[in-house]
Amino acid sequence: MLYLVGLGLADETDITVKGLEVVKKADRVYLEAYTSILLVDKEKLESFYGRDVILADREMVESSSDEILAGADKLNIAFLVVGDPFGATTHTDLALRARELSIPMQSIPNASILNAVGATGLQLYNFGQTISMVFFTETWKPSSFYDRIKENVQIGLHTLVLLDIKVKEQSLENMARGRKIFEPPRYMTVAQCASQMLETEEERKEGVYSEDSLAIGVARLGSADQQMLCGTLKELADSDLGPPLHSLVLLGKRAHELEKDYIKAFAVNGESFGQSWSKHHHQ
Amino acid sequence: MLYLVGLGLADETDITVKGLEVVKKADRVYLEAYTSILLVDKEKLESFYGRDVILADREMVESSSDEILAGADKLNIAFLVVGDPFGATTHTDLALRARELSIPMQSIPNASILNAVGATGLQLYNFGQTISMVFFTETWKPSSFYDRIKENVQIGLHTLVLLDIKVKEQSLENMARGRKIFEPPRYMTVAQCASQMLETEEERKEGVYSEDSLAIGVARLGSADQQMLCGTLKELADSDLGPPLHSLVLLGKRAHELEKDYIKAFAVNGESFGQSWSKHHHQ
Repeated sequence: MLYLVGLGLADETDITVKGLEVVKKADRVYLEAYTSILLVDKEKLESFYGRDVILADREMVESSSDEILAGADKLNIAFLVVGDPFGATTHTDLALRARELSIPMQSIPNASILNAVGATGLQLYNFGQTISMVFFTETWKPSSFYDRIKENVQIGLHTLVLLDIKVKEQSLENMARGRKIFEPPRYMTVAQCASQMLETEEERKEGVYSEDSLAIGVARLGSADQQMLCGTLKELADSDLGPPLHSLVLLGKRAHELEKDYIKAFAVNGESFGQSWSKHHHQ
Repeated sequence: MLYLVGLGLADETDITVKGLEVVKKADRVYLEAYTSILLVDKEKLESFYGRDVILADREMVESSSDEILAGADKLNIAFLVVGDPFGATTHTDLALRARELSIPMQSIPNASILNAVGATGLQLYNFGQTISMVFFTETWKPSSFYDRIKENVQIGLHTLVLLDIKVKEQSLENMARGRKIFEPPRYMTVAQCASQMLETEEERKEGVYSEDSLAIGVARLGSADQQMLCGTLKELADSDLGPPLHSLVLLGKRAHELEKDYIKAFAVNGESFGQSWSKHHHQ
């Protein structure tokens, strides 16, 4: 049996009781370690589970899935995923491969950022499609996210923006020389995301949003240390929300008074919050 | 301290380890019992937690929230919510009230149907806004959901439809006479939802969807007994997915080949699935 086990968002105690039972009984336990991260490391998990955990990087999951699934017709394999197991396409691939091999599969759901973002006080039924923001480089600034935001904005919906993480990346030079030397991990901040959004608006000039559009920056959601900051994109571009992981929500104009009441406690600046709200939001 | 604790979707073991610790230590434990239900009853939860749980119905949460919060400046109050704590507006109200009373609050996320629906194999970033479907009566058939679906369909996105539940409802007669007699609980089925959707299309005639639009019915998600059925709305209107809870996803045309590969295993009829897919969906 292949078990896809969601770990939730913050630390080792965010696993469900059901998930923990699976981990304790499984013959092998893998931890998917490239689409997201917990705020605790592998050693902490191993000590909590009382057993070893095998780190599964992108290469292993995408190219050697049969290694992960080896013997799963008789053995119990637990594949641990930060958040919910079906948050990333790559896990659907693994589940499909298991189906081809006639390996039974069970998934154990958990919180993902897509629903936990409700802790901002923004109502989940007011969100449109979720988008991802990748790190821009000098020569690569993909703006397809802008078209998706435009679709949400036209309907008046909020947009959750998931921020890029780079783990186990090689520099072009090391890759060219075949050296397995990896760069330090990088996690996009709310400030970087807001800057890239404004850069793209300046480029595309379709007025989808502007410097004074309201957004909420969210950091370390689900942890005791979680932080939320509501401000204009310009304000968030200058913000510092501390260690990863960060996410951002761009507010839609269909926002509700109850949402306003809840999020104003997170405002960078009560005055500019009130002004931006009056300008952009109504029911 | 007020703790809002998500219980997840199916049974008593879907609580997180962190949530269970809170429940065990709290001075009072409430179970919100009207926006959704687990597939196990209160007694099962009490035996698992080793303590009593107070059922909180709509009246208590909406009119007597101060009773729930009484003493929470010194005591630990756990308020248990099926799914994720911020899945329903009413819990944002409770959190706001706690803030007014200067009661500190912590929420403990869990899976909700909004992310667990990824277990269908449909990609979560291809979903638009989520809608709710209420039970139609002879004289009340609200169709505002149709406008929301239209917005999603125009962009090509999937729509998750959450289905009405009626617990502790009084008949008009009993209400008029002030008799606290409650009707048996009712849970909308996938078949009822598909029928109401088709009835509304017939009424509104804007061609937002049709009898041969593809959808997925989902039942008892997250339980060992979970079931998924992919068919046209006409096929789903005649389906029987067994006991509650049910949900439905209307497929958007932006659907991806990987999604097709995954969901075809749930098809009522492989042939009509292939035909409907070719007609309505492309990347």
